[in-house]
Amino acid sequence: MNKQFRLAARPVGLPKASDWKLTEEPVPTPADGEVLVQTEYISLDPAMRGWMNDAKSYVPPVELNAVMRAAAAGKVTASKHPGFAVGDAVEGVLGVQQYAISNGRGLRKVDTKLAPLPAYLGGLGMSGLSAYFGLFEVGQPKPGDTVLVSGAAGAVGSIAGQLAKAHGCRVVGIAGGAEKCAWLRELGFDGTIDYKSEKLSDGFRRELPKGLDVYFDNVGGDTLDAALTRINLHARVIICGAISGYNATEKPKGPSNYLSLLINRARMQGFIVFDYIKKYNETYEVLNKHYAEGKLKLRETIVEGFDTFPDSLLKLFKGENTGKLILKVQVQ
Amino acid sequence: MNKQFRLAARPVGLPKASDWKLTEEPVPTPADGEVLVQTEYISLDPAMRGWMNDAKSYVPPVELNAVMRAAAAGKVTASKHPGFAVGDAVEGVLGVQQYAISNGRGLRKVDTKLAPLPAYLGGLGMSGLSAYFGLFEVGQPKPGDTVLVSGAAGAVGSIAGQLAKAHGCRVVGIAGGAEKCAWLRELGFDGTIDYKSEKLSDGFRRELPKGLDVYFDNVGGDTLDAALTRINLHARVIICGAISGYNATEKPKGPSNYLSLLINRARMQGFIVFDYIKKYNETYEVLNKHYAEGKLKLRETIVEGFDTFPDSLLKLFKGENTGKLILKVQVQ
Repeated sequence: MNKQFRLAARPVGLPKASDWKLTEEPVPTPADGEVLVQTEYISLDPAMRGWMNDAKSYVPPVELNAVMRAAAAGKVTASKHPGFAVGDAVEGVLGVQQYAISNGRGLRKVDTKLAPLPAYLGGLGMSGLSAYFGLFEVGQPKPGDTVLVSGAAGAVGSIAGQLAKAHGCRVVGIAGGAEKCAWLRELGFDGTIDYKSEKLSDGFRRELPKGLDVYFDNVGGDTLDAALTRINLHARVIICGAISGYNATEKPKGPSNYLSLLINRARMQGFIVFDYIKKYNETYEVLNKHYAEGKLKLRETIVEGFDTFPDSLLKLFKGENTGKLILKVQVQ
Repeated sequence: MNKQFRLAARPVGLPKASDWKLTEEPVPTPADGEVLVQTEYISLDPAMRGWMNDAKSYVPPVELNAVMRAAAAGKVTASKHPGFAVGDAVEGVLGVQQYAISNGRGLRKVDTKLAPLPAYLGGLGMSGLSAYFGLFEVGQPKPGDTVLVSGAAGAVGSIAGQLAKAHGCRVVGIAGGAEKCAWLRELGFDGTIDYKSEKLSDGFRRELPKGLDVYFDNVGGDTLDAALTRINLHARVIICGAISGYNATEKPKGPSNYLSLLINRARMQGFIVFDYIKKYNETYEVLNKHYAEGKLKLRETIVEGFDTFPDSLLKLFKGENTGKLILKVQVQ
């Protein structure tokens, strides 16, 4: 049988158990041109919270009673598609379910000899692409620039920081807790700010004595507002996400210091990874190369058990993951 | 004698009479390489409010007891500078005073046969440059784009709208009052929204059925926040000013809809006219040409009498000017 998590209701605030419905149906059979994938790892991403809202966005919302949208990785168990064979390791937008049918579009074969399967959902997957395109296409850092990253111990932030470091930048990360900050220093971050144990303004004073040139924002809210007070002339603020507000039930505050963009002739720009689809393949190669050379260190927080999905997703919003948060379908 | 308005105190909220000191001193005599200008028109600009604050910005604050900084235009009455002769009409940052000494740097000779002197403080001066660089360097409109302008009946907004129109854009202006909106239609604006008589959301629904591609913001506050809900894919939001907040005594609200920048892969960018100093001369020529061809219509609200300066400046913040607000030194 194929277990699936379906969206039962549009959540208000943090998703509750009753916003989900766990269903079971027979494992489907691929038609001509299709492939059946047994999912082993399911990617848990802050963006999923946005997909649950009935609002115009960069992708349509997940419909009520539909299988929840998610990236996942697994093995091909049946194939009527010339490009895929049984046993192939693959990754794609397969949904929160144990088996998925794919017509091959957007389904990527990955090399589990280079890196373990979960890596292709994280730093060698969509998180890596988001970090790369946000940093280089939008942020355009120059070697020597100071780059600040919020949510720095998260899936995207940890990659963005390492990419900036490899590019010759001075990198400062904001994260919650001493353990996360210690990991960032292992990754090569030049400075860290633990927002749980110090005021951002104190951390900024210590770690950003010459201000910042690029701010990679995953968090929004007060962190973005505070960072705007530290931007240098012609700074670039990359809006990748705003996890602090995704479960807000009231309209979040905007960045009241946005006029710093005027004073400093700076820009704040959003992006969506999908816009760079034509550059995916060349960028996967760059990420794979960095990884093979040890310049890109990956870490996953893996939660076991398909049925834990509703609770496991919430770990993102409680900051309980370090690196990429992944649901492992089977309990070991 | 030379009358001068000096900054007596840093204002809290709207500048009060007691924030100014009216002084008189003998008319100075130019030294070698200097020129004496008798000011006839003094430019009143929203930016002046920012210069009165003791805060880090794009120019140093006006010091207490210093003559208030302002652009002004007048005639040379004595010259020991080879580039200027008695009787020359000139414009520059001469301050709120009746006579000013200049070493010639930043002092521009202007042609009063092409346009009357006040024009060179407005559409053929700094306001025109601000509109031009903000629109084209930051906003980068393409013909056919929809351009929204706030503060559209102001000195900069009215020029930005006309330049966008001449560039082949569809232009919508936001202004306060039926008279201002009627003037915008005379200038060729395709649509107008009178924020004093209708809700912005209603105006947007009527005038921006296909959203907006470029937003030239002079106002900030709720107007910026509302405009962010209407931006199209890859829109550009030009931060030229934020007059709604310049006299705020509490921290202004930020644009809570800024995540629209992410959803729409859009950018919000500030600029300062001074950054484009190398392009001033060529741009003055463009503006003069537009003006000579009748594509750029100018209007000034002229208040008479040097001594009225403290009250006259406040007209900006009450929206009492249409087009450029100018103080005429002599009462006729």
